[in-house]
Amino acid sequence: MGKLATLFAPERVAVVGATDREGSVGYAVTRNLQADFDGEVLAVNPNDGEVLGLPCADSLSELDDIDVAVVVVPPDVAVEVVRQAGESGIENVVVITAGFSEAGSNGAAREREMVAIAEEHDLNLVGPNCVGVMSTSVGLNATFAPQNANPGNISFMSQSGAFITAVLDWASDHAIGFKDIVSLGNKAVLDESDFVREWGDDPETDVVLGYLEDIDDGRAFMETAREVGKDTPIVVVKSGRTDAGASAAASHTGAIAGSDRAYEAGLAQAGVIRVDSVQELFDAASILADQPAPESGEIAIVTNAGGPGVMTTDAVGDSSLSLAEFTDGTLDTLGERLPDGANIYNPVDIIGDAPADRFEETLDVVLDDPGVGMAVVLACPTATLDFEELAAATVAKQETHDVPVAAVLMGGSSTRAAAGTLSDAGIPSYFDPARAVRSLEILSEYGESREREVAEATTFDVDKERARSILERAARRNSTRLGVEAMDLLDAYGIPTPEGDVVNDPAEAKEIAEAIGEDVVMKIVSPDILHKSDIGGVEVGISPEEVWDTYEDLVARARQYQPDATILGVQVQEMLDLDSATETIVGVTRDPQFGPLVMFGLGGIFVEILEDTSFRVAPVPEPEAAGMIDEIDAAPLLRGARGRAPVDEAGLVETIQRISQLVTDFPAITELDINPVVATADGVSAVDLRLTLDTEEL
Amino acid sequence: MGKLATLFAPERVAVVGATDREGSVGYAVTRNLQADFDGEVLAVNPNDGEVLGLPCADSLSELDDIDVAVVVVPPDVAVEVVRQAGESGIENVVVITAGFSEAGSNGAAREREMVAIAEEHDLNLVGPNCVGVMSTSVGLNATFAPQNANPGNISFMSQSGAFITAVLDWASDHAIGFKDIVSLGNKAVLDESDFVREWGDDPETDVVLGYLEDIDDGRAFMETAREVGKDTPIVVVKSGRTDAGASAAASHTGAIAGSDRAYEAGLAQAGVIRVDSVQELFDAASILADQPAPESGEIAIVTNAGGPGVMTTDAVGDSSLSLAEFTDGTLDTLGERLPDGANIYNPVDIIGDAPADRFEETLDVVLDDPGVGMAVVLACPTATLDFEELAAATVAKQETHDVPVAAVLMGGSSTRAAAGTLSDAGIPSYFDPARAVRSLEILSEYGESREREVAEATTFDVDKERARSILERAARRNSTRLGVEAMDLLDAYGIPTPEGDVVNDPAEAKEIAEAIGEDVVMKIVSPDILHKSDIGGVEVGISPEEVWDTYEDLVARARQYQPDATILGVQVQEMLDLDSATETIVGVTRDPQFGPLVMFGLGGIFVEILEDTSFRVAPVPEPEAAGMIDEIDAAPLLRGARGRAPVDEAGLVETIQRISQLVTDFPAITELDINPVVATADGVSAVDLRLTLDTEEL
Repeated sequence: MGKLATLFAPERVAVVGATDREGSVGYAVTRNLQADFDGEVLAVNPNDGEVLGLPCADSLSELDDIDVAVVVVPPDVAVEVVRQAGESGIENVVVITAGFSEAGSNGAAREREMVAIAEEHDLNLVGPNCVGVMSTSVGLNATFAPQNANPGNISFMSQSGAFITAVLDWASDHAIGFKDIVSLGNKAVLDESDFVREWGDDPETDVVLGYLEDIDDGRAFMETAREVGKDTPIVVVKSGRTDAGASAAASHTGAIAGSDRAYEAGLAQAGVIRVDSVQELFDAASILADQPAPESGEIAIVTNAGGPGVMTTDAVGDSSLSLAEFTDGTLDTLGERLPDGANIYNPVDIIGDAPADRFEETLDVVLDDPGVGMAVVLACPTATLDFEELAAATVAKQETHDVPVAAVLMGGSSTRAAAGTLSDAGIPSYFDPARAVRSLEILSEYGESREREVAEATTFDVDKERARSILERAARRNSTRLGVEAMDLLDAYGIPTPEGDVVNDPAEAKEIAEAIGEDVVMKIVSPDILHKSDIGGVEVGISPEEVWDTYEDLVARARQYQPDATILGVQVQEMLDLDSATETIVGVTRDPQFGPLVMFGLGGIFVEILEDTSFRVAPVPEPEAAGMIDEIDAAPLLRGARGRAPVDEAGLVETIQRISQLVTDFPAITELDINPVVATADGVSAVDLRLTLDTEEL
Repeated sequence: MGKLATLFAPERVAVVGATDREGSVGYAVTRNLQADFDGEVLAVNPNDGEVLGLPCADSLSELDDIDVAVVVVPPDVAVEVVRQAGESGIENVVVITAGFSEAGSNGAAREREMVAIAEEHDLNLVGPNCVGVMSTSVGLNATFAPQNANPGNISFMSQSGAFITAVLDWASDHAIGFKDIVSLGNKAVLDESDFVREWGDDPETDVVLGYLEDIDDGRAFMETAREVGKDTPIVVVKSGRTDAGASAAASHTGAIAGSDRAYEAGLAQAGVIRVDSVQELFDAASILADQPAPESGEIAIVTNAGGPGVMTTDAVGDSSLSLAEFTDGTLDTLGERLPDGANIYNPVDIIGDAPADRFEETLDVVLDDPGVGMAVVLACPTATLDFEELAAATVAKQETHDVPVAAVLMGGSSTRAAAGTLSDAGIPSYFDPARAVRSLEILSEYGESREREVAEATTFDVDKERARSILERAARRNSTRLGVEAMDLLDAYGIPTPEGDVVNDPAEAKEIAEAIGEDVVMKIVSPDILHKSDIGGVEVGISPEEVWDTYEDLVARARQYQPDATILGVQVQEMLDLDSATETIVGVTRDPQFGPLVMFGLGGIFVEILEDTSFRVAPVPEPEAAGMIDEIDAAPLLRGARGRAPVDEAGLVETIQRISQLVTDFPAITELDINPVVATADGVSAVDLRLTLDTEEL
């Protein structure tokens, strides 16, 4: 058990602000604790001698051996109570009281004070502004919610208190039980990472569920989730996904919204299963809590009705799963055992007159097929089928073969008892085949993410000091926006660039062009001129002889266009043959929660019009960098589509990794765009660069 | 009422094959009819004197005034019974018996015979191989399903009989009632179009639902659906959507699978609402049956909980709906009425202590806002909220303002009575906000499709006879694959092509080049040489002086490459400046169910790699042709993105329409590809052509 063990399994809980006043939070919390808690409940209220039959202490300091203090007093008093808790050696404090950072600047100051106290005493502080915590292991309901949770193996945290009360009300109808529940509130001290870590250590928690509106420290969460997720699936609804949702969330919680792309990438990289709706959240929880992870995403369907079998197959087609192909042995056995008119191929249609034992026999054959990773058992009501017998047969066969199964019982009340039998054995059942398939898909995603060895990002041998001095030079110039004058940065990190340099003298320009030995590209270099082409600041196909004159022309044009522009010089660069090349873009933005977010895409219209891009949170390990290329729709263009030569994809993958290393090493780089990174069969070359520097971070 | 009025509202129904034998279909059908039918049930069975208390006739011909004959005798006998029915002047026959086209070639022959009889007597024949029909208006349950339908305003047809029994079982639990239900079976005579037409005429049917695995005559269905859909929404699950599903469907029904793209386009063009899952089908049915179509897709959310409000907003962000912006008047009023801490902006958070009357007051203001087209009322359980009061308030305000509303009651049993109150008033409620938003989205889609004036396809003034003679000439040559030698076909239909012609003489070639007066493109023209460029069969930038020699070179190369190739000549064509142009593709394939399916996309990678294409069933009216351009992701490239000049979009729209007219006029054209259609600011030009001809259709 982890650091929060006594928070969830206390022996003595004190309610500070306990009261007899019905309808108040202090009353509700005290009553809830009295109702089911295995341990001792103590009341603190200086104004009362006795509350709900409990003797009242005047303050926490009068009480000994308190494991958890639940605080429901007004906000200013709450801060003092937290201090007393700390001074009395209490480890865990649940601050239900509102009126902190969610309530203007006074509240925020109060919260800061409380955090300081909590840090001083190393308090595990939940909230403030929350509904409280529950743990069914000891009957703990330290909340003001009207309903206690049923016991189960799901632990659940929510940034919305109302959602907790809603889920509790609903779950009691749906045979869903919980181990622990936490209302995160303002997350002043304990946040989502702390609870994920705790539940990772908790043998009674088989699935972690979260409703989150933001993640304070995305990178810390990723690290914890990655570790915990190896044994315990984590399923999250992260709301504020859409633009509309993000602005609603911002006005609701005041959270600085990170980009949803960062959440999407970060959660996926950490193996967290992200779902979009409440239905999916609990469908995911149920199947993950009770069914084994599948060996493959190959699904078998056994049905007594053709049409619904087709609907189920469509749902498989919509998913990342695929229909299992049976071995010849399986087909032969099915052919022998099933009646005429049955379809022995997947989806297996055992036809309308099938009794439960035909389902059982068929499942026995199908689940034994080595190519079958999971199965849907689908039954419509018929005169010959007893749903309860079907349920028992399904439970038996699932247990024998230990292959995950979901059931579709296409009926109403006639299926209820069967659904209960299945649910008791941990097999979910649905009316809609699409939900069954989606649940199995989530199970399969978890299985895959668990099997995926989490690669560490490669650390390339780079010249970090040279890079630092380039950035520091820019900082001394007060430059926050750098361009090709910083191309050496790429060189320092081993990223190939075309031959050439930035010079501020026509003679040097000529020298470089002569060294290159063929026609060159020349560009004015100025942080003040963004659209160089528009002012005639770019010239291509310049022979070494023309370089001197061109240098002077470029500078003259720049001066004329913007007399006060800082001109850093002229870039003289080898001309690449773009006809046989594919232009790509590697970009980086810095997300407030997840840090550097690396983007890959093809140049031009692919990024700008089609938004065909992929994202990863840095540092990006090799398989993730390769995944960024796989994910874009236009990837075939890099791989020899339409008669092109396949480009050096390994070179691109390495470039992404090296960029990732660069922006990880230098948090001062807040934005970076290499556009284009030209890719050919022979290699890659970073041609142009823009970056934004936060000089204070250097 | 339509042609099938007496099928659904008969006075006298005869069961041919009625029997006392429990467990048999004849027994089940007779019992079901006896149970609830308002009219008279008659039994026919030559082997019995009496069945279930009914006197037995030996044959249908002994009975008078039968409105519907239900046939449950073995298949060979069934054909004779249908004949007797026809000869006795019975109008409606429901053939439940299986053993027809679904059962091999003997069955298929039997079905053909039955169809011939039905046609001879103009019989309304349902089935064969079906579960039967129901109509709650007269208590008719002429099926062997174990459960009768509850009355309601939804009529439902299904190509899967099992799905009907499943839905009946489930619907009785979910307060869903039906007017008529039809099991389509093999659709030997009556098919989906017949029932849609009938229900369009039926004032008691407010929504038509269908589960379809194929649509026999896609174009007829489109026409009927378009007409009926103006007043009666039609919602369809068309299964076999995915590749996996399509092959499962083919093995299940033996139907020739048309492409799902044709279904997608055809159903959308006909205003049919297509949903993917069973849950969506019934969610759609409920809201369409009872809520008014919205005036706009602008949605208001009123919630007592911030977090779930954000989830709902995310669901809006995922949909085609958008969050309504309130008027200043609305905001002022909300500001006055709502307490501190409330959020007056959409989503309106009336906070956790809201009683039902705060919901009521807020709804009154919000539903009155002219910018609000629909609303979600979202409530989590709290100490202050009475769900039943909330339900009553919601019903009252929905009725007053006549704006569609869906409810999210985020709880379990505590919300059940409220859900019932809402449901009785036609307001759907859900636990998951995403479902509420999806239902409103479907309602909005229906509203939009109903308002959309169905445009007729433009008939351009074309030279159809010239086109015919071009095709006939090819047919005489036994050519089924035509190329640029048929470019005149495009000219005949008013589609601009570059200057030039196909000639078979170097002198003529020179003449044409001189008339063009600048460099030309020359291509070998042969139905036997598909990849002209690969064999040096294309030359660009040929000056008039070089034309003669080039002609001879091209022909020589072609002869050398393939001595027996038919060479139709050489195309001499004006060279277009492709640098400032965008290449597009217009293609046509012929779908077995929907006929010509027109495709539009941008040339090259856009179609081949990115599959960025749009489809419509021909004939394509002007707004649909414009929609085809709108729908592709790369559309901005035609509209001046990245500094290009916007192309002549009207010219493209007209080209699509003219192609649509061409392939509609000539069913002999089974495939056609114009690649590229070059589009510039000044116009469009069809540069290359391939088509496949079915000469028997000429």
